[in-house]
Amino acid sequence: MTADVKFSTGLITFGNQTDRFCGSGYKEDREIKEMFKAASKVKELSGLELVGAQVKKSDDVKLIKKLKDDYGFEIVGITAELFSDPAWGRGSFSSGDPAIRKKAVDEVKKCMDIVKELNGDIVNIWPGQDGYDYIFQSDYIRSWEYIIEGIRECAKYRQDVKLSIEYKPKEPRTHSFIGTIGKTISLLDRINKKNTGVTIDVGHALYAYENIAESVSLCKLHGKELFLLHLNDNYRYWDDDMMVGSVHILEYIELIYWLMKTEYNGWYSLDIFPYRENGIRSAEESIEWLKSMIDAVEKMDKSEVEEIIDNGDATMSTRMLRKIFFKK
Amino acid sequence: MTADVKFSTGLITFGNQTDRFCGSGYKEDREIKEMFKAASKVKELSGLELVGAQVKKSDDVKLIKKLKDDYGFEIVGITAELFSDPAWGRGSFSSGDPAIRKKAVDEVKKCMDIVKELNGDIVNIWPGQDGYDYIFQSDYIRSWEYIIEGIRECAKYRQDVKLSIEYKPKEPRTHSFIGTIGKTISLLDRINKKNTGVTIDVGHALYAYENIAESVSLCKLHGKELFLLHLNDNYRYWDDDMMVGSVHILEYIELIYWLMKTEYNGWYSLDIFPYRENGIRSAEESIEWLKSMIDAVEKMDKSEVEEIIDNGDATMSTRMLRKIFFKK
Amino acid sequence: MTADVKFSTGLITFGNQTDRFCGSGYKEDREIKEMFKAASKVKELSGLELVGAQVKKSDDVKLIKKLKDDYGFEIVGITAELFSDPAWGRGSFSSGDPAIRKKAVDEVKKCMDIVKELNGDIVNIWPGQDGYDYIFQSDYIRSWEYIIEGIRECAKYRQDVKLSIEYKPKEPRTHSFIGTIGKTISLLDRINKKNTGVTIDVGHALYAYENIAESVSLCKLHGKELFLLHLNDNYRYWDDDMMVGSVHILEYIELIYWLMKTEYNGWYSLDIFPYRENGIRSAEESIEWLKSMIDAVEKMDKSEVEEIIDNGDATMSTRMLRKIFFKK
Amino acid sequence: MTADVKFSTGLITFGNQTDRFCGSGYKEDREIKEMFKAASKVKELSGLELVGAQVKKSDDVKLIKKLKDDYGFEIVGITAELFSDPAWGRGSFSSGDPAIRKKAVDEVKKCMDIVKELNGDIVNIWPGQDGYDYIFQSDYIRSWEYIIEGIRECAKYRQDVKLSIEYKPKEPRTHSFIGTIGKTISLLDRINKKNTGVTIDVGHALYAYENIAESVSLCKLHGKELFLLHLNDNYRYWDDDMMVGSVHILEYIELIYWLMKTEYNGWYSLDIFPYRENGIRSAEESIEWLKSMIDAVEKMDKSEVEEIIDNGDATMSTRMLRKIFFKK
Repeated sequence: MTADVKFSTGLITFGNQTDRFCGSGYKEDREIKEMFKAASKVKELSGLELVGAQVKKSDDVKLIKKLKDDYGFEIVGITAELFSDPAWGRGSFSSGDPAIRKKAVDEVKKCMDIVKELNGDIVNIWPGQDGYDYIFQSDYIRSWEYIIEGIRECAKYRQDVKLSIEYKPKEPRTHSFIGTIGKTISLLDRINKKNTGVTIDVGHALYAYENIAESVSLCKLHGKELFLLHLNDNYRYWDDDMMVGSVHILEYIELIYWLMKTEYNGWYSLDIFPYRENGIRSAEESIEWLKSMIDAVEKMDKSEVEEIIDNGDATMSTRMLRKIFFKK
Repeated sequence: MTADVKFSTGLITFGNQTDRFCGSGYKEDREIKEMFKAASKVKELSGLELVGAQVKKSDDVKLIKKLKDDYGFEIVGITAELFSDPAWGRGSFSSGDPAIRKKAVDEVKKCMDIVKELNGDIVNIWPGQDGYDYIFQSDYIRSWEYIIEGIRECAKYRQDVKLSIEYKPKEPRTHSFIGTIGKTISLLDRINKKNTGVTIDVGHALYAYENIAESVSLCKLHGKELFLLHLNDNYRYWDDDMMVGSVHILEYIELIYWLMKTEYNGWYSLDIFPYRENGIRSAEESIEWLKSMIDAVEKMDKSEVEEIIDNGDATMSTRMLRKIFFKK
Repeated sequence: MTADVKFSTGLITFGNQTDRFCGSGYKEDREIKEMFKAASKVKELSGLELVGAQVKKSDDVKLIKKLKDDYGFEIVGITAELFSDPAWGRGSFSSGDPAIRKKAVDEVKKCMDIVKELNGDIVNIWPGQDGYDYIFQSDYIRSWEYIIEGIRECAKYRQDVKLSIEYKPKEPRTHSFIGTIGKTISLLDRINKKNTGVTIDVGHALYAYENIAESVSLCKLHGKELFLLHLNDNYRYWDDDMMVGSVHILEYIELIYWLMKTEYNGWYSLDIFPYRENGIRSAEESIEWLKSMIDAVEKMDKSEVEEIIDNGDATMSTRMLRKIFFKK
Repeated sequence: MTADVKFSTGLITFGNQTDRFCGSGYKEDREIKEMFKAASKVKELSGLELVGAQVKKSDDVKLIKKLKDDYGFEIVGITAELFSDPAWGRGSFSSGDPAIRKKAVDEVKKCMDIVKELNGDIVNIWPGQDGYDYIFQSDYIRSWEYIIEGIRECAKYRQDVKLSIEYKPKEPRTHSFIGTIGKTISLLDRINKKNTGVTIDVGHALYAYENIAESVSLCKLHGKELFLLHLNDNYRYWDDDMMVGSVHILEYIELIYWLMKTEYNGWYSLDIFPYRENGIRSAEESIEWLKSMIDAVEKMDKSEVEEIIDNGDATMSTRMLRKIFFKK
């Protein structure tokens, strides 16, 4: 496999995931240092993603800095904390309250500073609370204007950090503003800052009924940079955050092909919620699937693939995929 | 409106709902007695549903008994605690571990005793953890056999309590065993005990792509009693647990018509999660919608409705519904 | 109701709709002049939409011109024929074959000329065959480049005709390129011609999991004109093309509110498939629902509505909607 | 691969498939004898399924008898014609019109006689028009009673033919009565005739959000025989009728495992709609995928698989699946 593919995951993979029925989570809670230790046991894992709540205090940052150095991890990025504080309940960037909007901008700026301190360069923006649940609950135009304005202000703050927008159709709101690849691209057109780009979360794209390879292609076509990939799987109706290799392996093969074709050179970063599973083994298994699939794509005869795509004959495409798994 | 329609809701309506991103919930936590006090402010609310976690200790039961009497509430039923303890993480009734299965049966039996003590007669069985997430993770036949066996054992325990099975397609597992009205009816055929029946949760039925009026009819057709209704709304893809009157009001009208036609005489019980809303107002608003819709159905000319149904002409059905809302 | 709301429908409403299992359709076939006659019986209908196949020959155009004048109809627009000829089977604008792409451009240009001849000014572009079904079947970037190029060439052809892009998530392909409001807006950003805009088909938006009022708002926000509305309803999973008033009446109320707020002044145009219903009555019933809902929105106290939206309290929104239907 | 797996497909695979937008279909029409000739070119294909419309006249039956003998095909079964005649538009077995219900029973009886004449023994019952589209359009209880009664009458007609019920959630109606595995099982409980059983169409099960292996298991658990399998694939939202091997290959592996475990010994029968593809190659490619997957399942260490299932650890299941495709 190509030497330069790098695997990362959210540090939280090694924590304890809760849901609305089991608030305690299905496993034991774990401290930051235990999570780092667990991460260190995953073969081929060289990067970690953080969330804003993990770097609230300067002591946290100091500890993480030490741990990442001790274990030899790179910090890929930080997802700004715009979703777990009840203060965001009715929106962060899109809030009708100017104090909340300011708080959102400040949170992102703070993460921008911290990520540089940790030698990373991505702040992931997933404004999960920015949306609506009910009919007649939202002033759509004003909300979107606030989002554009807020992210643009963050982007101006420092050019050396990439702001990567992660779209998701719903949850925790029944409707997210930034819900699809198309809405993300038109948002970036309005923001119009070079250090803004896209995070594609495979699961989010799947349950937005997107073909992920097309979504990757659209970034390229529209001149928006794909900064980050969040890898997981689901059954197309909800963000199940399952391991890679659970359901959609053919779509993963095509995704990897297009990532190579469009020269994506960022991290292959897991975003999984192993509620009832061991975090280490879940990450390992996901990476094993990815390695095998990347390897398979690298071995494909590119000119043959392009010919099949050009031809558009589905029996040839399906045959080609079959040959990857079953040699004869 | 007919005098004998009675409204109830889960006591938890007046608590604090959490989700997987906001573990603290969007509101303040509330104690049992505060929830009762809040409930007492909702006009026309005369019943309350409990969950097993609220009656863990005999002191809890004593307190609830006092509060319900003080405020003049009836206890509709208790949903047995088969979903929030991490011990159920890989199933309760369907668990491969006999100790867990026994624990599930014991929990239900305990709730049967308690509900009688509180003058209620329904134990609601929603085995939310009984399902699977991944391919090749479950022995389907054995799991279903355990479910049949376990519920039958509970049903035998005492005949004076109704065991009401609440189906749901998914969540917290990606696939629930008892997921649809059809699976529920065939399960009850195998259990074959008179004190077992069905809870239809409107939201669960909607995102199983069921027409709720048909689901009610199927209970009647197959001789399974509809013991309980859980009322809420959603956008058909997930159990959003929104207020009644949020989205599917035409389907609610038809549902109410068929409830009357099939002579349902149980509670109209809310099961809503007002994450970001005031619980009292959410319950009140849901009940106001229900009252208006029940009133509208009662005013329908039944022979005209039956003629339109017999005729099967959709333009007539749609016109009839329009006339309910817009007089001219 | 405001005098200037004008209702139209596709002429095909009065024809015979087929599906893949019943190729003959469920009703009788009808000739153009019979369809006009039927249309003339629908109260309040003043406009008609055509499809390219109805204006293939100059005699067809002559006949339609006479009929529209005789019956006093306006021609709203023509949907270019890019979907029913098997030649489009693997795409029209996005085809890998330059001859097919040229044919697509020519078809649209021809419709632009004809629509002006009929005193209309919209050519609706729904490139239903431009998409893909299977994995590894499409060169996404090249296909989108062809679409941009082709529509831009059409837009340049004459500035006095509006090219209105109608997005749809799928069908007849499992994935359409122009599938969502977001993809449509970013497409229009690349085409960058003033006479290009958007057709929102309510059903398409619903089964793309869009809130239609938000989709209307996004056109305004991004400076893309909403040229045309296609009105119908469905159950959110497929383009059922049901009558208006079938399922989502609350969302329709909100849609109408936002159409007024964003000053939409185009047609309220039906796009329904009354497979088993009488076309005249289906159109009439849809228009009756629309009239009642438009009337209701006009009677809303706008400052109260804006206050409720600003407040974002769902119990208030839901109450407000209830008051529209149930006075007390 | 086990010698006794037999592959079949619908004869219509080799015809011309239409949809509602392209009524001519995307390919050339073909006569019965041409379809047989095409079928004869598909390696490993030994059975064919017919639809009622193909055996309308006694000459048709005579011709098919000759062709099947000439080419050496077995006739697997006939799907009774209950969906393509506009007479069925508002239902066949469930129609409110006794003449239509009689016509449905007669059609099935006729197919029972013909299938025996052709040495087959399955009549497949897919009552596609038996359902409803709109709210308040159907008397659910009466309709279901008619369905039970009608199929029971057919079952009594002759015991030597299997009546196999094929469920499907929707299309051509927005809601089918016989829509899920659960509804099918409870229907069979009411019919209570030994020669009635189930056809599982993989695509139908997928877009009913069923795990197909569980659906197979439920037949076994409830004592309903799985008479027939219809194999195809889709994206979980619609009956796309794609080739096997298009999307859900992991679920197919599990399905095959459970078919073996529950000792299914019927046909592996394709039901695909290669609208834009060559029918011969589409069937061949589907069979190649099936052969490879069946072979893979046969090579699995059964005791290891059972241990993994018993254990219920998803990381082990996912690893096991990976090892099938990627040896190391």
